[in-house]
Amino acid sequence: MDPYVIQMQDHGSLPSVLDVHVNITGRSSVLGKLKSRKARWSVRPSDMSNKTFNPIRAIVDNMKVKPNPNKTMIALSIGDPTVFGNLLTDPEVTQAMKDALDSGKFNGYAPSIGYLSSREEVASYYHCPEAPLEAKDVILTSGCSQAIELCLAVLANPGQNILVPRPGFSLYRTLAESMGIEVKLYNLLPEKNWEIDLKQLESLIDEKTVCLIVNNPSNPCGSVFSRRHLQKILAVAARQCVPILADEIYGDMVFSDSKFEPLATLSSNVPILSCGGLAKRWLVPGWRMGWILIHDRRDIFGNEIRDGLTKLSQRILGPCTLVQGALKSILCRTPQEFYHNTLSFLKSNADLCYGALVAIPGLRPIRPSGAMYLMVGIEMEHFPEFENDVEFTERLVAEQSVHCLPATCFEYPNFFRVVITVPEVMMLEACSRIQEFCEQHYHCAEGSQEECDK
Amino acid sequence: MDPYVIQMQDHGSLPSVLDVHVNITGRSSVLGKLKSRKARWSVRPSDMSNKTFNPIRAIVDNMKVKPNPNKTMIALSIGDPTVFGNLLTDPEVTQAMKDALDSGKFNGYAPSIGYLSSREEVASYYHCPEAPLEAKDVILTSGCSQAIELCLAVLANPGQNILVPRPGFSLYRTLAESMGIEVKLYNLLPEKNWEIDLKQLESLIDEKTVCLIVNNPSNPCGSVFSRRHLQKILAVAARQCVPILADEIYGDMVFSDSKFEPLATLSSNVPILSCGGLAKRWLVPGWRMGWILIHDRRDIFGNEIRDGLTKLSQRILGPCTLVQGALKSILCRTPQEFYHNTLSFLKSNADLCYGALVAIPGLRPIRPSGAMYLMVGIEMEHFPEFENDVEFTERLVAEQSVHCLPATCFEYPNFFRVVITVPEVMMLEACSRIQEFCEQHYHCAEGSQEECDK
Repeated sequence: MDPYVIQMQDHGSLPSVLDVHVNITGRSSVLGKLKSRKARWSVRPSDMSNKTFNPIRAIVDNMKVKPNPNKTMIALSIGDPTVFGNLLTDPEVTQAMKDALDSGKFNGYAPSIGYLSSREEVASYYHCPEAPLEAKDVILTSGCSQAIELCLAVLANPGQNILVPRPGFSLYRTLAESMGIEVKLYNLLPEKNWEIDLKQLESLIDEKTVCLIVNNPSNPCGSVFSRRHLQKILAVAARQCVPILADEIYGDMVFSDSKFEPLATLSSNVPILSCGGLAKRWLVPGWRMGWILIHDRRDIFGNEIRDGLTKLSQRILGPCTLVQGALKSILCRTPQEFYHNTLSFLKSNADLCYGALVAIPGLRPIRPSGAMYLMVGIEMEHFPEFENDVEFTERLVAEQSVHCLPATCFEYPNFFRVVITVPEVMMLEACSRIQEFCEQHYHCAEGSQEECDK
Repeated sequence: MDPYVIQMQDHGSLPSVLDVHVNITGRSSVLGKLKSRKARWSVRPSDMSNKTFNPIRAIVDNMKVKPNPNKTMIALSIGDPTVFGNLLTDPEVTQAMKDALDSGKFNGYAPSIGYLSSREEVASYYHCPEAPLEAKDVILTSGCSQAIELCLAVLANPGQNILVPRPGFSLYRTLAESMGIEVKLYNLLPEKNWEIDLKQLESLIDEKTVCLIVNNPSNPCGSVFSRRHLQKILAVAARQCVPILADEIYGDMVFSDSKFEPLATLSSNVPILSCGGLAKRWLVPGWRMGWILIHDRRDIFGNEIRDGLTKLSQRILGPCTLVQGALKSILCRTPQEFYHNTLSFLKSNADLCYGALVAIPGLRPIRPSGAMYLMVGIEMEHFPEFENDVEFTERLVAEQSVHCLPATCFEYPNFFRVVITVPEVMMLEACSRIQEFCEQHYHCAEGSQEECDK
């Protein structure tokens, strides 16, 4: 019998497995008598997949509570501004895509770092004298997530560490740990509008630290760092010679009383990889268009890091070429009113939410200055029925059909995050239900003089 | 002085670096007297980026020859069917994208494995009784490259090995080695229309082998395996308990005298991850839409591998949602004539090219049966001026302005690869110039009775 012909079985029956010789790992070497040795099936998932962990998914999927059937579900949990249809991208953006399609010029392979012309557009858009950019400083990626992935993959070896904000976006840890990179958490201070605890940050730095991630404006906090504070962060990085990954996906998304300062405009002493994309500001997160802006005026990265990024980009060849082809028009033709209207709406919702929640005993919202979120502290001592923010938000779903993410998802227990992109009507209703919920569960501290009835 | 404030320098001058205390790695720990210790900048690219190597890029970029200025450049080297504008996607495909855009429903985040409805469409399109598929068996990816990346990333740990065809697409090695996975090359036999040397294949398998990559139809060979041969491959995999990654990106792209047999239809005994996408068959490689079809009727992968793929997909969140939204129409509405016309053209070009080259002394083309390429053997003993295929193809550029990839790019020296997607006029001209080139450089073997003048 030809050993290379598979024995066809009747449909539905399985061949019997003969284990005449099986070595320890379950597979035998073929050395001649093929039919006398059979291996055993044993397909194990890789260490990398085992280490790839999405904490939000883990927490949310484990929340098996059902919402209150008498109340419509209001999700203040989803970091996707498009979900309820109230925040739409600009018609110029859609038209730009159609024009790219119609041209027929953007169907083939682009260079893995993106079309030169598209990179020129991004460079031109973000260039300023304080942080100059050319096309060679730009890499296009499949979403800001891939931008962050490439930056971590070029800067860090397994066993080295990166500094990540707490509370902070969970993807940094997911990406880092999937690659065997250690994560050290530096604290943001709620009492200081979520500024960084700089002493604690600096104390974390050791000889294995290869990157500091700075997320401004912040998810989940909605905070915006002042120029002074950004300069202090840069001073630490400069002193300790740590490059910075600036996650600026919410760049320019600040409310009128604040100012967004791109980190790279404040120092030429520290090499900075600034990550951004279309997702939030242009309201098209699904299109997967991100970028890395390389700021390195002291040539500290040199060619090696740039070449490393280019090589890594060749693994899966970059973002959809149609969106690349539309980039010029998207960046140039989207009217200022579009950005302004989005921010007005977010600011209005933020004020509404903050104003409602700050009046609720037991809750301590922190007023946001940008992005799409705000964080609310829970005075857990006044809610003795709940062990933590996870339980608090679970019960909120069960009783009031309002879903907020427990900030344990962001490594910050006893807070919850509210997404402020939802329609105003939903926001009002949600805040009203949160108030009812808190009133029902609030307990004065024992022996205190507080009034419990407000 | 506040240690946290960076000293602003005059524009253009650099701060001096004080190295009062510098430890071996160039960074000091901060233990109090911050101003007395300074670290030194030393940013090294990661091992992963150093190990990420694109051999085609390396070979092509090092080919510094200039083409003959008197002859227009003809590139038979680029694996992109859209480059010359003669192969266009179908209007239904473009319309499908516009409809997706206009719907406004595909701008937000999709699940990282892709929209359920899009996965259902792909499952439905490829489902058949011999290899059934449901939405749960489909993962959408940013191009077939990411499909292959995810498969390798879930199946293999650093130090384990995968089996890769030689000649074969270089991305398998690029991806594997960037992840520390060893590559073992199994031989394809040109004298047998590039069938696998099954004995040699099986001899490579050891206890660390975790995956066999089978590429059918083949890049660079343009070969198509017979059913019988596929069954023999499956027999090896079944006997040795090695899962298969079937790279079927050129699936269904076979000329009329051949038949494409999806590997999974021929056995239920071997777990197969079939990778594909829109790139080649629909002529839109830049759109980055790929998929993994999970065939695992004996539940050998189980939930672990499936969950592993899902977790890995959460790192960068999958392909452009617009293309996902267009998938249903693309798959259902593209007329059969479109596929037929593409294949007719490729077959015609293949015959033209093969017919021209087989008549040239010193060249041995292997007739392709599908995909977009053919391989041509060089009788190096008759071209003593050239050391190898790299030199041969370099001189071909320099003298005739015809560019073919040396098959060293595919680990197969003394061959070169021709891309058969170029317009017929170019193909004719290119073959004519190749003939002239060979005539000028052909030498009879010494002491032979061969006629040199043909």
